[in-house]
Amino acid sequence: MLKKRLFTPGPTSVPEDVLLEMAQPIIHHRTDEFIKIAEEVFKDLKYVFQTENDVFILASSGTGAMEASIVNLFSPGDKIIVIVGGKFGERWFELGKTYGLNVIPLNIAWGKFFNTEEVEKVLKENPDTKGVLCTLCETSTGTHFDIESIGKIVSKLPQTVVIVDTISSLGAIPCYTDKWNLDVVVTGSQKAFMLPPGLAFISVSQKAWSFIEKSKLPKYYFDLKRYKKVLEKNDFPFTMAVSLVIGLKKSLNMLKQITLEKIWQEHHVRAEATRNAFKKLGLKLFSESPSDAVTAILLPEGVDGEKLCKLIRTKYGISIAGGQDKAKGKIIRISHLGWQDEFDVLTAISSVCIGLETMGYKLPVEEGIKEAISILFKQDN
Amino acid sequence: MLKKRLFTPGPTSVPEDVLLEMAQPIIHHRTDEFIKIAEEVFKDLKYVFQTENDVFILASSGTGAMEASIVNLFSPGDKIIVIVGGKFGERWFELGKTYGLNVIPLNIAWGKFFNTEEVEKVLKENPDTKGVLCTLCETSTGTHFDIESIGKIVSKLPQTVVIVDTISSLGAIPCYTDKWNLDVVVTGSQKAFMLPPGLAFISVSQKAWSFIEKSKLPKYYFDLKRYKKVLEKNDFPFTMAVSLVIGLKKSLNMLKQITLEKIWQEHHVRAEATRNAFKKLGLKLFSESPSDAVTAILLPEGVDGEKLCKLIRTKYGISIAGGQDKAKGKIIRISHLGWQDEFDVLTAISSVCIGLETMGYKLPVEEGIKEAISILFKQDN
Repeated sequence: MLKKRLFTPGPTSVPEDVLLEMAQPIIHHRTDEFIKIAEEVFKDLKYVFQTENDVFILASSGTGAMEASIVNLFSPGDKIIVIVGGKFGERWFELGKTYGLNVIPLNIAWGKFFNTEEVEKVLKENPDTKGVLCTLCETSTGTHFDIESIGKIVSKLPQTVVIVDTISSLGAIPCYTDKWNLDVVVTGSQKAFMLPPGLAFISVSQKAWSFIEKSKLPKYYFDLKRYKKVLEKNDFPFTMAVSLVIGLKKSLNMLKQITLEKIWQEHHVRAEATRNAFKKLGLKLFSESPSDAVTAILLPEGVDGEKLCKLIRTKYGISIAGGQDKAKGKIIRISHLGWQDEFDVLTAISSVCIGLETMGYKLPVEEGIKEAISILFKQDN
Repeated sequence: MLKKRLFTPGPTSVPEDVLLEMAQPIIHHRTDEFIKIAEEVFKDLKYVFQTENDVFILASSGTGAMEASIVNLFSPGDKIIVIVGGKFGERWFELGKTYGLNVIPLNIAWGKFFNTEEVEKVLKENPDTKGVLCTLCETSTGTHFDIESIGKIVSKLPQTVVIVDTISSLGAIPCYTDKWNLDVVVTGSQKAFMLPPGLAFISVSQKAWSFIEKSKLPKYYFDLKRYKKVLEKNDFPFTMAVSLVIGLKKSLNMLKQITLEKIWQEHHVRAEATRNAFKKLGLKLFSESPSDAVTAILLPEGVDGEKLCKLIRTKYGISIAGGQDKAKGKIIRISHLGWQDEFDVLTAISSVCIGLETMGYKLPVEEGIKEAISILFKQDN
């Protein structure tokens, strides 16, 4: 029997307490009991989003919430700027194109950082831009983008909103929805929220509501205006994924108790330990602006990343992620998300070293582990 | 501590074995292990749908699958006929209108049966009709509609497809997707599939695919053409609700073992016992074509159905459903769906009688129970 460990950037490990909470007998979604749970969950989501805005729960993957933000805010022909620095930036681009928007892509090489000044420049050249769509952590490359600065720029433009995909990052790294003036923030359940996939969350600012009022794109399942009417009663427009919401209540309670600041710090330490361990081992990071949510490591020339991941998963039950699309085979990605502690970090690093050794690439594993331990167990952490 | 029992027409009770299956550690959705589960699940869904067509799994509620069938098959301005005999027929109507279709509603009073000849007549008057959208069991009224006949009529029209909402009925009552020539069949996880809400399923015929090729409505999250490309590898276009699919594997296994014919028969007996018990008690059924999936009972004049449901739920932990919209307060609905046995039927009937007595309406409960037992435990069942 293999012990299963998840280091993929979603799904992530779910705490046993949350799994058991969801294994309780199902209750109906239109009862006082469930409405009370929903009330608590809607409130606690605001804490994790750091917002006073409404946060909606959708029964969908994160992509559903990305689609929701486009079909609710815009009309065909609307001009949007999309920051495309990986697979999930591309998803914004595809979504915009699908719904007939006038999409200006701001292309960045995978793993590279982007200069916020460029966004400012393109916005000046296109004063009729309705939205800037971006990603807090581009999961495909492990890159952190400076959303705070984009929020600052866009907040000065009354005709433009900023929409952020924080699917693999909200709850793991700092994201201040209100302080940073983020109009729409979307995320999913299977990352820092320590839940199975199946729920998505979306917050909507007052400025975004004024866009929603004018939007002409058709929507039904993802219609937020319709949702808003029942949200006041802590209800849902359609049957909600009851068991996942019950799990969410539990996981939000855990997040609240630990506090966001502490969770962010813990993710930072796990990421820092992983990054430095692999540097010590002689490997390079794929991203020049690495995120604390997920670390992408460039593999030595000739090592097939897909094969490495499969080997580690099959032999040791440990799931780390390979690269996607153009990074396929070239990188591995280790997530620091959710239900993990310091020893899990040591496990992830060791498993990669042991896997590489099996494939003929011996690394000084003890050096990496020593480095990681020195960061993970520093007295002042 | 109250023992919780669900007699709502979704969510329904989930077997303990399925709950525990879903409480196992989460696995990643792009691994051989999960792909093997997906392969089995996609195959077994075809059995429950009684089809050779592809069946897709969506991470959404059933309404998401209804939306998927509209945005994938049609283009703005397309003419469709919608059978509207309750809240869920209305949902087809609203969806069609939202997406700019030319919707002809075929309105039927709530609880009334409809004459298939009328569909034939409207189709003759509108030979440019692209689709007939209907409901196998109209859950809001407990009414069974004759979908087989509609399938027969539409199968003769090469330019028209039939799309059926079987959300509260597939797996509970006979529905032969292929034999009845049903082009698109949509359903949800939280009914006869004995799962929590959060998944929807949709089958697509060859004829429907030719519509999909021509459809001009925009779609992304629900795009079936995109999905079809990865379905061949038993993969999903977006992160799937892993734990629910793992539960689905278990529940499909149970359904297969019992066999559909036996399950349909059991639902029929439970429904028949409930209907006859309430008739014996002097109450009337709300529907003139009652479905074996859910029984809607007209309450005595002056009894508030909402109050009755709340009383039974609060005092005894038993959830039965009240009426929706125009039937609110006037009816109660008892579902026969999913994980139920004969004694559960006696419990549901008793709870209504006891609740009514508390509210001042004494009924001869023993007469109802006697009648139900005689049907439930007939030797030849």
